[in-house]
Amino acid sequence: MRDVAIIGAGLSKFGERWNSGIKELMAEAGIMALEDAKITSHEIEMLYGGTMASGRFSGQEHVAALMADQLGFHNVPAVRIENACASGGSALRQGYMAIASGIHDIVVVGGVEKMTDVTASEATTALGGAGDQEWELFQGITFPGLYALMAKRHMYEYGTTEEQMASVAVKNHENACKNEFAQFRKRITIDEVMRSKVVSDPLKLLDCSPISDGAAVVVLASMDKAKKYHDTPIKIMASEQSSDTLRLAERESLTAIKATQLAADKAFRHAKLAPKDIDVVEVHDCFTIAEILAMEDIGFYKKGTAAKAIADGETALNGKISVNTSGGLKGCGHPVGATGVKQAAEIVWQLRGDAKDRQVKGAEIGMTHNVGGSGATAVVHIYKRAD
Amino acid sequence: MRDVAIIGAGLSKFGERWNSGIKELMAEAGIMALEDAKITSHEIEMLYGGTMASGRFSGQEHVAALMADQLGFHNVPAVRIENACASGGSALRQGYMAIASGIHDIVVVGGVEKMTDVTASEATTALGGAGDQEWELFQGITFPGLYALMAKRHMYEYGTTEEQMASVAVKNHENACKNEFAQFRKRITIDEVMRSKVVSDPLKLLDCSPISDGAAVVVLASMDKAKKYHDTPIKIMASEQSSDTLRLAERESLTAIKATQLAADKAFRHAKLAPKDIDVVEVHDCFTIAEILAMEDIGFYKKGTAAKAIADGETALNGKISVNTSGGLKGCGHPVGATGVKQAAEIVWQLRGDAKDRQVKGAEIGMTHNVGGSGATAVVHIYKRAD
Repeated sequence: MRDVAIIGAGLSKFGERWNSGIKELMAEAGIMALEDAKITSHEIEMLYGGTMASGRFSGQEHVAALMADQLGFHNVPAVRIENACASGGSALRQGYMAIASGIHDIVVVGGVEKMTDVTASEATTALGGAGDQEWELFQGITFPGLYALMAKRHMYEYGTTEEQMASVAVKNHENACKNEFAQFRKRITIDEVMRSKVVSDPLKLLDCSPISDGAAVVVLASMDKAKKYHDTPIKIMASEQSSDTLRLAERESLTAIKATQLAADKAFRHAKLAPKDIDVVEVHDCFTIAEILAMEDIGFYKKGTAAKAIADGETALNGKISVNTSGGLKGCGHPVGATGVKQAAEIVWQLRGDAKDRQVKGAEIGMTHNVGGSGATAVVHIYKRAD
Repeated sequence: MRDVAIIGAGLSKFGERWNSGIKELMAEAGIMALEDAKITSHEIEMLYGGTMASGRFSGQEHVAALMADQLGFHNVPAVRIENACASGGSALRQGYMAIASGIHDIVVVGGVEKMTDVTASEATTALGGAGDQEWELFQGITFPGLYALMAKRHMYEYGTTEEQMASVAVKNHENACKNEFAQFRKRITIDEVMRSKVVSDPLKLLDCSPISDGAAVVVLASMDKAKKYHDTPIKIMASEQSSDTLRLAERESLTAIKATQLAADKAFRHAKLAPKDIDVVEVHDCFTIAEILAMEDIGFYKKGTAAKAIADGETALNGKISVNTSGGLKGCGHPVGATGVKQAAEIVWQLRGDAKDRQVKGAEIGMTHNVGGSGATAVVHIYKRAD
């Protein structure tokens, strides 16, 4: 298999983008990524587009062909990838495979979600499609409810506190303040999180990532071609994915996401690296408890110990390990199909040294972690600045 | 790149499956395919699942993870592919690439759509998401309308008649009578098509493929492993895909689907074959005019001449070339995400000599052709019985 690198990255501004639809968001991120890679649209050989529920949010399926059309990639194979909130990360893995295999040299991976054209209730119902419709959503549980069950059990087993969970949100908002693309550039306090409205006990409003509009695009190239386009290609050291039961009730554990554990383990083995080698990581913090689970399941902390470490500041910008420097899903926003690709863009900027006020000093190796649903899909990538 | 073969195929019964949901349909097709391949679920390394609008039809996204869960493929990477009505064909191409690349040895490709849980109006709206929501559907045009425009122009330019279009439906219903999985095992006459209710002039009810429930599954293996599972692996000689503008109004021509022309041309070149070499082909006859366009765009007939040839019986079972022996989308049914995979299953059975009453005598080389929307995606595969 061939080495694959990211040679360009672009984002739209994340947030409530009332004046922009899927096409405008894609164009905003896509043009930025193509310009970054100094590449023209006619050099693109294939496109993967991640989006979760564009049919229900915007009445639009067939979104990858629309992206290819909108970005001027005439007649290339275009494939939409949908794996709930891991659609972006899964699309990135497909792009990686298409190049690693030798089938294509230059592939664009995009992610987009336009969520604010429907009511909050409709959005919650659409997002419920990430779980088991018959056995979970139809019975009345939504995603905050599923993660609340995980949080409750984590509190019971390990003594994790609501204040510790709140500290995840506080840190991610702090990072988001330094990210021009972020939805929430606003500091919050533990006290504000604790006093925010209960969504599903113990999760409160400020424990939850928001409804967002946004798009993200990266340009991938085989390593032998990458240097022609960008001085600092970012090599993808590993690209791994696992699945698990769609239903939370059928999992082996409520306090671990097995798909994350398996994908991370495969990724570390493939890259011949260990958790201690990672300088900067974007993890899937759809809810604050999810970041705690991720830090433990990837192997940065032993089970039951991450919450205290986060509350102690170990994962703040330029802490022991810098986590969610973009602001994460909580602070940067969570347009679901875009998130996995946005994570990759953030790591590209960090490893290039282009992350401005939120730059992790001396960052050389990065990671992204993208989860679908309550853990039925997990995708893990490891990245390194190419020599 | 490595050679890839199909070692197992399975279908659910197509039709109005009131008592079955996505899970039951997938299980029905999946178990048949696994048994056919004499393979156990724990040998499967990856799954691609094609479905177009499960979110709108069933409230269920994240369908590939659900399929993997349902079929017992524990923890494998599972990826949903959505390319409108070409979701199944696109999923097959991803499965092919995953093995050709050397990344995986055994991959399952499934397709499913459960369309009858919504009203006909809701289904038509959901299917409209295959076109440009803002520029087509929102303005009031649905898919019969888009294909009616193509039919009208084809009639104007080439003198194609409504009776010739009707002959496509008559032939495909005739074939469907011999297919135990088909939705419509019922002969119809030209006169019945002509007298059926106008849907969008000149297309009448019996020119249109139906709303259907169904699933299809194939098992792919690297050629070196294929013979261990099945005596007659079917080799994939080519797997090609192209895209075009989502909007019909922006195409170069209304009487040709350029994505089909490009994908077919690439496929013939890759396989070092020509249209005359194909013994049996499943083409995308979502409407009768679509089969006429396909026969011309793939290169079986010169532009403007296919309609007469079909009416003359050249494409009937064991005619000059046997087209849509399964009954096609018109006769067998069109559960959109399943269709592209069902086409592959039909060709597998034809090339093995297992197609019973609808067997094409001496069939050695087959083809499938799957279209998304009004032609924004086209996927073409060529198959040959392995020696």
